[in-house]
Amino acid sequence: MRVIGKGVNREDGYEKVTGRALFADDHSFPGMLYARVKRSIYPHARILEIDTSRAKALPGVLAVATARDIPGMNVVHVVIDDQPLLADKTVMYVGEPLAVVAAETPEIAEQACDLIDVKYSKLPAVLDILKARGKSSPKIYKDNNVFAHHKIRKGNIEEGFKKADIVLEQIYRTPYQEHAYLEPQGMVAVPRYGSTMEIYGTMQCPFYVQQAVADITGLDLSRVRVVQTYTGGAFGGKEDVPSLVAGQAALLAYHTQRPVKLIYSREEDIISMSKRHPAWIKYRSGVTKDGKLTAVEIEFLFDSGAYSTLSSVVLWRGIVHSVGPYNVPHVKVDAYAVATNKVPCGAFRGFGSPQVIFAAETQMNELAAKLDMDPAQFRSINLLQEGDLTATSQLLDHSVGIGDTLKAALGSSNWRDKRKGSGGTDGSVRKGIGLSTVFYGVGLGAGGKQMARAGAYVQLLRDGSAQFAVGTTEMGQGMRTVLSQIVAEQLGIPYKKVYMIETDTSRVPDSGPTVASRATVMSGNALIKACAPLREILLKRAGIILGQDPQFLIFQDEMIHLEEHPEIAVPLMKVIEDCHHHRENMSHEGWFISPETSWDPETGQGKAYFIYSWATNIAEVEVDIETGQVKVLKITAAHDMGKAINPLLVEGQIEGGALQGMGYGLMEEVLVDEGRIINPNFSTYIIPTVIDAPEFQPIIVEKPFRDGPYGAKGFGELPLMGVAPAVTAAISHALGITLHEIPATPERILEAIQAAKKANLNG
Amino acid sequence: MRVIGKGVNREDGYEKVTGRALFADDHSFPGMLYARVKRSIYPHARILEIDTSRAKALPGVLAVATARDIPGMNVVHVVIDDQPLLADKTVMYVGEPLAVVAAETPEIAEQACDLIDVKYSKLPAVLDILKARGKSSPKIYKDNNVFAHHKIRKGNIEEGFKKADIVLEQIYRTPYQEHAYLEPQGMVAVPRYGSTMEIYGTMQCPFYVQQAVADITGLDLSRVRVVQTYTGGAFGGKEDVPSLVAGQAALLAYHTQRPVKLIYSREEDIISMSKRHPAWIKYRSGVTKDGKLTAVEIEFLFDSGAYSTLSSVVLWRGIVHSVGPYNVPHVKVDAYAVATNKVPCGAFRGFGSPQVIFAAETQMNELAAKLDMDPAQFRSINLLQEGDLTATSQLLDHSVGIGDTLKAALGSSNWRDKRKGSGGTDGSVRKGIGLSTVFYGVGLGAGGKQMARAGAYVQLLRDGSAQFAVGTTEMGQGMRTVLSQIVAEQLGIPYKKVYMIETDTSRVPDSGPTVASRATVMSGNALIKACAPLREILLKRAGIILGQDPQFLIFQDEMIHLEEHPEIAVPLMKVIEDCHHHRENMSHEGWFISPETSWDPETGQGKAYFIYSWATNIAEVEVDIETGQVKVLKITAAHDMGKAINPLLVEGQIEGGALQGMGYGLMEEVLVDEGRIINPNFSTYIIPTVIDAPEFQPIIVEKPFRDGPYGAKGFGELPLMGVAPAVTAAISHALGITLHEIPATPERILEAIQAAKKANLNG
Repeated sequence: MRVIGKGVNREDGYEKVTGRALFADDHSFPGMLYARVKRSIYPHARILEIDTSRAKALPGVLAVATARDIPGMNVVHVVIDDQPLLADKTVMYVGEPLAVVAAETPEIAEQACDLIDVKYSKLPAVLDILKARGKSSPKIYKDNNVFAHHKIRKGNIEEGFKKADIVLEQIYRTPYQEHAYLEPQGMVAVPRYGSTMEIYGTMQCPFYVQQAVADITGLDLSRVRVVQTYTGGAFGGKEDVPSLVAGQAALLAYHTQRPVKLIYSREEDIISMSKRHPAWIKYRSGVTKDGKLTAVEIEFLFDSGAYSTLSSVVLWRGIVHSVGPYNVPHVKVDAYAVATNKVPCGAFRGFGSPQVIFAAETQMNELAAKLDMDPAQFRSINLLQEGDLTATSQLLDHSVGIGDTLKAALGSSNWRDKRKGSGGTDGSVRKGIGLSTVFYGVGLGAGGKQMARAGAYVQLLRDGSAQFAVGTTEMGQGMRTVLSQIVAEQLGIPYKKVYMIETDTSRVPDSGPTVASRATVMSGNALIKACAPLREILLKRAGIILGQDPQFLIFQDEMIHLEEHPEIAVPLMKVIEDCHHHRENMSHEGWFISPETSWDPETGQGKAYFIYSWATNIAEVEVDIETGQVKVLKITAAHDMGKAINPLLVEGQIEGGALQGMGYGLMEEVLVDEGRIINPNFSTYIIPTVIDAPEFQPIIVEKPFRDGPYGAKGFGELPLMGVAPAVTAAISHALGITLHEIPATPERILEAIQAAKKANLNG
Repeated sequence: MRVIGKGVNREDGYEKVTGRALFADDHSFPGMLYARVKRSIYPHARILEIDTSRAKALPGVLAVATARDIPGMNVVHVVIDDQPLLADKTVMYVGEPLAVVAAETPEIAEQACDLIDVKYSKLPAVLDILKARGKSSPKIYKDNNVFAHHKIRKGNIEEGFKKADIVLEQIYRTPYQEHAYLEPQGMVAVPRYGSTMEIYGTMQCPFYVQQAVADITGLDLSRVRVVQTYTGGAFGGKEDVPSLVAGQAALLAYHTQRPVKLIYSREEDIISMSKRHPAWIKYRSGVTKDGKLTAVEIEFLFDSGAYSTLSSVVLWRGIVHSVGPYNVPHVKVDAYAVATNKVPCGAFRGFGSPQVIFAAETQMNELAAKLDMDPAQFRSINLLQEGDLTATSQLLDHSVGIGDTLKAALGSSNWRDKRKGSGGTDGSVRKGIGLSTVFYGVGLGAGGKQMARAGAYVQLLRDGSAQFAVGTTEMGQGMRTVLSQIVAEQLGIPYKKVYMIETDTSRVPDSGPTVASRATVMSGNALIKACAPLREILLKRAGIILGQDPQFLIFQDEMIHLEEHPEIAVPLMKVIEDCHHHRENMSHEGWFISPETSWDPETGQGKAYFIYSWATNIAEVEVDIETGQVKVLKITAAHDMGKAINPLLVEGQIEGGALQGMGYGLMEEVLVDEGRIINPNFSTYIIPTVIDAPEFQPIIVEKPFRDGPYGAKGFGELPLMGVAPAVTAAISHALGITLHEIPATPERILEAIQAAKKANLNG
């Protein structure tokens, strides 16, 4: 292949490096106003009055809007319609929006927000997920504070445990994680041509934003046009919540009939936008003395915050991944998304799986330790293989690369030697190595089946260049480059001749969200479908020119020639010109519907995802037992993504994801006091930087997916998912202790060391 | 039909009336610069030097570009590539662009233009088309100053004249006409995302602009995106010349990498932008004593100005229409587009036909007078009918409505009585009534066959609203409304639920120019093709819901029901929702290729156009013989456009076109002194206003076109075309004289009266 499998440069790299890329805040329109949001200061309170009169009287203020000024519905639709755009009778979390202001300058808008007088009557708040389910807890969602409950019932769990020689039960805890995208939330709403509302902004899911703005303004969907601007990072944090930002800007644009820009400050972004759900996980598993898993029983709770948002589907992905990539005959899982008076949690790279994976992988390592078995050996006994059934009884009939990734990672990292040689007593520093094996269901799966389709539009111009549009978005992950490669390969033209038009809801039909590592498979396949008629037209026309049957012609090196006689050839450029001359339709659209999935909510059994990607992570660390400080030395990450359409970008994804996973495992911690986030900036919420970056060893494993574009599976989330437990496993290996909670901050490590010492003394 | 044939309100009316519509100059972008153009002050001169150093040194100037700074080709492609974007070695007309400046403010840009020092060496200029073909004339294009020569040879012209009892030969002259669009030329070039150039501006033909900008910048076509802004009138004046404006702005945006706005002043627009070609026409025809035309021989010259631009195709339409809607067995036509050192002429509503129609209709009236025959009766003897052959020997097999329009107009205007009762001697005021019968070949015809295709894109959203895109443009003619009606009718949804996305080259393939009254037929048919699969999907889904065979289902009143049992029905909205739920592809594109046309350039014989529209105009005037002042009292205009998709807009087109035709016939006159236009503004170039508007009696005749959308033919240009000769015929009738030249200004009328008196005295 000419272009597929090549590490071509990112199309957007030049723009970003030179500062030419225009992000949300770089967009301006004549007559534009600036918006600010008035927010709740209590986690739970009745709103007695919102007095906007002083704000409205401030010179330079064009509009102040509250819930009562919403012309359409005061709902931001996600799954359950419980979340308002602006709080009306009650506030449910600190930072919840109450009113919005549009003014001639951002400063005036800010000042006007301060002049809005809100009278509250405080209500008791639900702040702890374990207590929230108790009878004595105040109720903020139905009679149990549970937004969603999902389960898996496979085999017979009692029987499974009966067959076990060793049973281990442990509670694990995982924290919030902040997306920490470089570009905060931001939208510009522009009332335009034909009573439409155009929205320009940073987002993952333009079709969600379109629906939200239509709901709020009461405009037809066809009159709401959403254009994604260059998006400076997202990681799930721009999946559902940009609908709020866009709705706020659009409401003001609707009333003022002027463009309105709303850019969140970092603090406002951190206190009010979604996070990874904190989790409490009770994990119990049984294993035979020769290391075969017999049963896994899990109960886990996700702290959803004040509104349901995506919690139900995050939880669903959580249960499907909760058992890990292991062949377990008897499984019982119960999972609950619990309402609390805190910031609503939502999508984050991994989407409910990093929490359960931390628990699962830590427990697998503990089981291996109990069996006195190398954790890699323990994996190789239990890992899923072709022909096996997953925890949801899905038959894995092909593309199961987990064993290959384990083998590759072990070999490359020199695991066996390091595992033996670790620990060490070189002063206060201890070395360790640990691993995790993980899988990832690509796409929306059975839980999001209705949205599992994508459209594409391709046009081949008469100068031999092509442009295309898709409904998924580029947010830094490299989709634009990968899809351009697919179009170039399909049409036989140079990569540089392909141009992706920015994602715009008016160009292709609703293609679902850009989440779940689905863009390459879904938009890639839609593009291949769009290119097919173009290829056919080109071959037919070449056949006419060459006097040959088109079925024996092939594309090669910007020529079309007879397969058997390459000398009977015509330059592709000549064929393209001829097609245009003959008024052929050189533009086509493609539409791809995902392969079938299925789900029985009563048993949690079914074909949850149409394909899985697989990975093994091996982390090597140094721990200073006096300070509790961890230094990650190296991460070896072997990933099976079916086909690396662009190996350079795949490696970039692996490195970036691993670093983000390291942050999750070691340092990132949102501090909440009585429902209030007290570290809403990057001087107090610490993320890993380039200084913290270890040596990365990315390894590409390709087990082709038969329904993927050129065999590719999605994998963008996978690099983050298994890193935290590999790192904590390495720490455990270094220190001879086990960590059941992340992040493994120095404080928590020192505590664990103390606890272990105490236990040893007591023991 | 629910929507077709109804006079629904224009979609863009509200926007325009309330001032919300954004025209070219209403668009601004962050960091935008302002451009101005340095122009030639001589009609013909060698450029010795362009010194830009003083201009470049002016603070606030970001770029000064001459021909040497063009990264691509210094060519504005139309037909023959003779026209540069910026003059390099020679200037060819007063107002020709030499250099462009981009600065922080328009004032600085203006000042910088003044600081550009140009040294010329003057050359002899060609200013008169009759002299231009002489041997002694300087040569500015090849060895004969002829850009194009077209001809018709039908039958045997000598034989034709032999059969004639009366032969009349006369020379006719027609003037320049300025388009006088409300909005002058203007473009904003924005260098953007992915090294692309986006162009926003006022135009008819975005795909021409796209090609021009790609040629000039050297960018791929796929990286040049042209978006039409609200366009405040065009009339042909925004067909080819916006490519110059866009090229100038794009060149500066390319060099500065900042958005550049270039808005022409009215004066600059009038001196440098295209006009209707002035013409000299020698017309000779033979007729039997019972009024049957036997032969027509025509020679005519168009004054093309300095570059060929569209002259060749304007001339071609001219010859096809030169004989009028008459059945003439023997025809010989020779037509020449002649180069002169004046502003290049181009497209203007009617496109080469109003000139020859003035000659043809005036001559027909003169022939009728010679035969002492009512000119209406003379028409009825000679008008084309179904089964007849045109002058190009095209068989008219259906939709020939000329006789019906004549009958309707005569009846409605009470022609017979008024024709008798006119003249009069009421003081100095004389009354008169005159008519013309004309036809119009719809679309690009055989002369523009390769461009005779159009694309469309339609999306039906889950809330039952639809959006669509086409490649043709709304410029005030009502296309947007008419196409929205077609989509609403096709999809069975309310008109208000349909939204047309602004025309943008990246949405549909090159659909050719928006000229030649082609938008309704071409884009309308493309939309019907795009809607067809959507209708099929809806019917299939309704069939599943109702348990019926889809072939027996029909759309009606926002329901789909069994044709024979309307009670077996399902709401369309429910079907749409169901289609989305089942992940049907609810967006489709359509592609329409025009019906076949043909042309033999040697004989001028062939199927010149796929269909013709027809019209009869009757003008009633009062002439003051002392002042020469003409007052048009009433214009009765009967038009056959196949089907009036929106009768209200059809009537609006008839009224607007008739007023513009009145201006052409009576008052509009570009004054040129040594190649310099000396009346470049609306205080000296006089156009008719609402005060001059007579009573209009528009009459709709519908002879369906079998390949038209709902039977429609294009007709937007037709209302102008025959008005001038009808008005001059009415003046002739009032005064008993004949005018062979327009405009019939008071001066010219008084002259003619004097000449007639003198002739009477002498005779």
